Amino acid sequence: MRRLEHYITGAWTPAAGTGAVLADAVTGEAIFETGAAPDMGPVLDHARKVGGPALRAMTPHQRALMLKALGQKLMERKEELYALSAHTGATRSDSWIDIDGGIGTLLTYASRARRELPNQNTMRDGGAEVLAKDGSFVGQHVRVPRQGAAVMINAYNFPVWGMLEKLAPAWIAGMPAIVKPARQTAYVTELAVRMMIDTGLVPEGAIQLICGDAGDLIDQLGPEDMLSFTGSAAVAQKLRAHPAVLAGPVPFNAEADSLNAAILGPDVTPEAPEFDLFITEVFREMTVKAGQKCTAIRRVIVPTALIDAVQSALADRIAATGPGDMGRLVSQGQADDVRAAIAALTEEATLVAGGAYAGTWHAPTLLRCDEAMTARAPHEVEAFGPVATLMPYDGIDQAIAIANLGGGSLVSSVFTNDDHVARDFALGIARLNGRVMFGNRGSAKTSTGHGSPLPMLIHGGPGRAGGGEELGGIRAVFHHMHRVALQGTPDQIAAVTGVWVPGAAQREDRHPFLKPLSDLEIGDTIRTASRTVTLDDIEHFANFTGDTFYAHMDEDAARRNPFFPGRVAHGYLIVSFAAGLFVEPSEGPVLANYGVDNLRFMAPVSPGDALSVILTAKEITPREGEGHGEVRWDCTVLRDGDAVVAQYDVLTLVAKEPRTL
Amino acid sequence: MRRLEHYITGAWTPAAGTGAVLADAVTGEAIFETGAAPDMGPVLDHARKVGGPALRAMTPHQRALMLKALGQKLMERKEELYALSAHTGATRSDSWIDIDGGIGTLLTYASRARRELPNQNTMRDGGAEVLAKDGSFVGQHVRVPRQGAAVMINAYNFPVWGMLEKLAPAWIAGMPAIVKPARQTAYVTELAVRMMIDTGLVPEGAIQLICGDAGDLIDQLGPEDMLSFTGSAAVAQKLRAHPAVLAGPVPFNAEADSLNAAILGPDVTPEAPEFDLFITEVFREMTVKAGQKCTAIRRVIVPTALIDAVQSALADRIAATGPGDMGRLVSQGQADDVRAAIAALTEEATLVAGGAYAGTWHAPTLLRCDEAMTARAPHEVEAFGPVATLMPYDGIDQAIAIANLGGGSLVSSVFTNDDHVARDFALGIARLNGRVMFGNRGSAKTSTGHGSPLPMLIHGGPGRAGGGEELGGIRAVFHHMHRVALQGTPDQIAAVTGVWVPGAAQREDRHPFLKPLSDLEIGDTIRTASRTVTLDDIEHFANFTGDTFYAHMDEDAARRNPFFPGRVAHGYLIVSFAAGLFVEPSEGPVLANYGVDNLRFMAPVSPGDALSVILTAKEITPREGEGHGEVRWDCTVLRDGDAVVAQYDVLTLVAKEPRTL
Repeated sequence: MRRLEHYITGAWTPAAGTGAVLADAVTGEAIFETGAAPDMGPVLDHARKVGGPALRAMTPHQRALMLKALGQKLMERKEELYALSAHTGATRSDSWIDIDGGIGTLLTYASRARRELPNQNTMRDGGAEVLAKDGSFVGQHVRVPRQGAAVMINAYNFPVWGMLEKLAPAWIAGMPAIVKPARQTAYVTELAVRMMIDTGLVPEGAIQLICGDAGDLIDQLGPEDMLSFTGSAAVAQKLRAHPAVLAGPVPFNAEADSLNAAILGPDVTPEAPEFDLFITEVFREMTVKAGQKCTAIRRVIVPTALIDAVQSALADRIAATGPGDMGRLVSQGQADDVRAAIAALTEEATLVAGGAYAGTWHAPTLLRCDEAMTARAPHEVEAFGPVATLMPYDGIDQAIAIANLGGGSLVSSVFTNDDHVARDFALGIARLNGRVMFGNRGSAKTSTGHGSPLPMLIHGGPGRAGGGEELGGIRAVFHHMHRVALQGTPDQIAAVTGVWVPGAAQREDRHPFLKPLSDLEIGDTIRTASRTVTLDDIEHFANFTGDTFYAHMDEDAARRNPFFPGRVAHGYLIVSFAAGLFVEPSEGPVLANYGVDNLRFMAPVSPGDALSVILTAKEITPREGEGHGEVRWDCTVLRDGDAVVAQYDVLTLVAKEPRTL
Repeated sequence: MRRLEHYITGAWTPAAGTGAVLADAVTGEAIFETGAAPDMGPVLDHARKVGGPALRAMTPHQRALMLKALGQKLMERKEELYALSAHTGATRSDSWIDIDGGIGTLLTYASRARRELPNQNTMRDGGAEVLAKDGSFVGQHVRVPRQGAAVMINAYNFPVWGMLEKLAPAWIAGMPAIVKPARQTAYVTELAVRMMIDTGLVPEGAIQLICGDAGDLIDQLGPEDMLSFTGSAAVAQKLRAHPAVLAGPVPFNAEADSLNAAILGPDVTPEAPEFDLFITEVFREMTVKAGQKCTAIRRVIVPTALIDAVQSALADRIAATGPGDMGRLVSQGQADDVRAAIAALTEEATLVAGGAYAGTWHAPTLLRCDEAMTARAPHEVEAFGPVATLMPYDGIDQAIAIANLGGGSLVSSVFTNDDHVARDFALGIARLNGRVMFGNRGSAKTSTGHGSPLPMLIHGGPGRAGGGEELGGIRAVFHHMHRVALQGTPDQIAAVTGVWVPGAAQREDRHPFLKPLSDLEIGDTIRTASRTVTLDDIEHFANFTGDTFYAHMDEDAARRNPFFPGRVAHGYLIVSFAAGLFVEPSEGPVLANYGVDNLRFMAPVSPGDALSVILTAKEITPREGEGHGEVRWDCTVLRDGDAVVAQYDVLTLVAKEPRTL
């Protein structure tokens, strides 16, 4: 029986004092013990003063590459995690969700952060706001890393994923983590942290691990810290009401167990594929991880006409499920809790299938409550095990009302092959769920399922589910950053954000297409010569491209159009001529134009109008580990030197260094 | 002495019971009285069951037009508000912030909502997430209106603006409001509400007004409601810790008074324009609204070498300020509070200018604390009146440390003419402020100033400032909506969101450019013929437009480029040919192509490649009150019928009905 170690202030530290004994969920054998909480002052200090600065000395893309490398290293050693995870009562496929799912989340964040975020710690949120008519005073929202610690209090059911899904966005944002896994399975988390530390890739202080109680950790939190919690709604409430959390206020994110619903649409018949999909999904959610999943289906809401058929189909599957077919509850204590909850549920519901148990084994258990609108227990009592309650409804409105009696859920699913039914349910239940999944034959083979949070979709829900948001791709990164409005002159805003804004200084020396990233700076500009658009040009372009839209070809028709003074140039002609004006043709550092953003045609261009362009380097994003980067150019097309006729961002790939040709 | 009335459950209702007597701030005469709180159950019910559904029966643009009309009506009657506002002790220019500022906020939201939001209550957040390789299962985040009540507890200092700045985003989002103004100036809010109700433009239940105590309003809130508070940090904490708020959890947004700082940069000399700008700004913030502004400058942080000069300059202005030059504190009670706070401040600071008072008049009062790093009072004690404390610093790092001792502020300003100084301060203080304003000679004439929240910039701040966010343009609307992840087949997602997503059904009948909005549906598609790009085309386009970039013109140079197999077509040629393929030229309902979004060139196009286009109506946004609307088309350009070479959104204006030509 080994004592678990904290990883704090740079060292693995066996916990002193007394803690708890952790037993193997299958054999009951004592396998680990925890100790007392360490002194938390130095732990927080280490995160704030060592880990945070080290992470923020890296760019977001560098941190993303660290995640990628860590994910790859964890993947290499994952069998060690699987072996240890078996002691928690998880089957191999249960552990897959935790281990491969967790590593996959790291890798997803590694890739999305590099694709979707700029490579600097100050990130713009929205565009510049012009606050003065003459452009001399502008606003710009930016996100900056919070400079505290991200404290993560995790649930026992996913000791790896539960850590990594929070770590990934926190690290991308530049926040150091203090991870406190739930006692019961902390040994799996401990191993995963050990693997990460062993790689030598993690900056000191970026992660600390507390294997045991949180001690006075929460008392010491302040407004720059964050607290995220996964677990029961009751503990979530306790943390939310903690004086230090209230006083900070400490941004608090809770993801709590909820009474998630699966709804069978009124359009589904017992013969329809959706019926079987529904039965399969409900049964899977009851049995995977022995039902110890915050997203598991607890309420099975079906048309009254089908309730017996659903009950019978589920009962058949439950009857065929033995102890070897699924995992165990994590501990005898958890098993006792599940049995107590079932007892509470049976005050208002009837046991209709399963229910057998022995030690940490508990058969899938189906209850039925025919008074879904008036009963309380099925909507409020969660048995955190392989337990669900079947309820009938009459009409979509009632199904929505029943679902919403849960008071807020992480996820609900609706099985229907009628897209209007899907829509009606969405309008009724979306506001009380973090995620709504629709199932039908069209996604039967590809659906990721009711119970699977995905890194790109938010995970969390209102009300009983805790009111928080995790994951959701970059959204979760932003929850770890502080949003602030900046106001100043364009030059001041550009200096702070590193991104050129209209009105900021423009420098014209060499053509900026001749500059590799090592020379190029934001504000580097080319003002082009002008070119007069003729009617011949318009006709020529129309005939060459085939775009003979009436506004270009027919003077009378163009005049009848409410927006044009007569025949006008094609928008695509304007941008094509603009490129002809601003492009430097020689083989230089500019490698490609890979796109255009936010192109708006601001005013019509008529024959005789002279076009010219101002092209300015706006944002420069070197790619980590590549020989090039992205340059976003502000492109303004002028008519007769003053009126803006088109405005857009030109996106190019540019070499970092002069090319040797 | 009239008793103020509640506007609840559809009627003006004089408050029963006993309340408070409200005195004129200047004359001391009793002018109004409040009563007891009404029974809040029916009030909340009315908001949730009458007001919410009525608002959500409108589209966001319809609600925006209601805001516009209300703003115009309030503007017509604003002199009545000015007359009443004088009783609060405000000067006319103080009242301008409240009255014109509040109406301006309504109008800004009216205009931005129509420009920046779709015209339906379910709003996409980000693009579709492909969750299955074959595209049969996708994710989509959407925002939906919360279906509870938005409870607004406002401060006394801005009885009009304080209501309207919260009402505007809540109404745009589709949430009904219950407004509880602070007692002292509730009579001004009551008049503003009366003016709005009088217009007949506000749906019943969309606004209710409580003139007096909140009674048990907070106790009855649930997870679909929202609570937003403006006022002291102490009351914010009380509300945050309220059992019902914790239990909901009820989304809670606080904007609390904070110890805002103004910092004079180390680069500024007494002769520089920034010195005078700084003095002017600090003095203005002390005197406007008699300093009763949550954003007012409380801490004046200046280089040690300049502190005497700053003190002297401020003292001169203060000495020249008499009772006729500024407004009053709102009440004798408020005056007592200010004097008590000054007494607390003088434990650690010295009174160096002003300080005279009589009744609700209080002269601008400057304190000085030379031990800025160790003193506590100047960073923690707020005198909510014309009071500020001057503090010296040595070096930017120390100035940042002093500013951050405030523990979170609504706003700080930095006066500097060195953009690097601006940047260094931003990196140091941005995370502990809701807004950071830079002042210098470049924005001297146009700056909106330290103390002015603007509708387009967020207002709120971390820590002591309450940890909330108000305003910030559409960001504040989104705080009133719930974000949920949807998963399903593309057809299901399209049915729910009303926006076509890749993989959803495409219908090809008539060319969709022949359909006015009354006929057009999302999914309407044209698949074009194909056109082979020749080397001649590329050369011709290059010579015609002038875009002779080497990748198009020089086979060897193109091959040396890491991304191209040889000479390739211009991106602009691809989109121009694409338009030639998909445009229906005849004079029909399509009025203009006003832009392109998110254009990405996915693969190179070489001579001999055949291009074709699939163009699909993706999102349809009819303009309220106009004969046309916007149609966003998904445009996919294919090479040889399969590989995607370009992907973008084409933006058009389309007539609602067939045009009579």
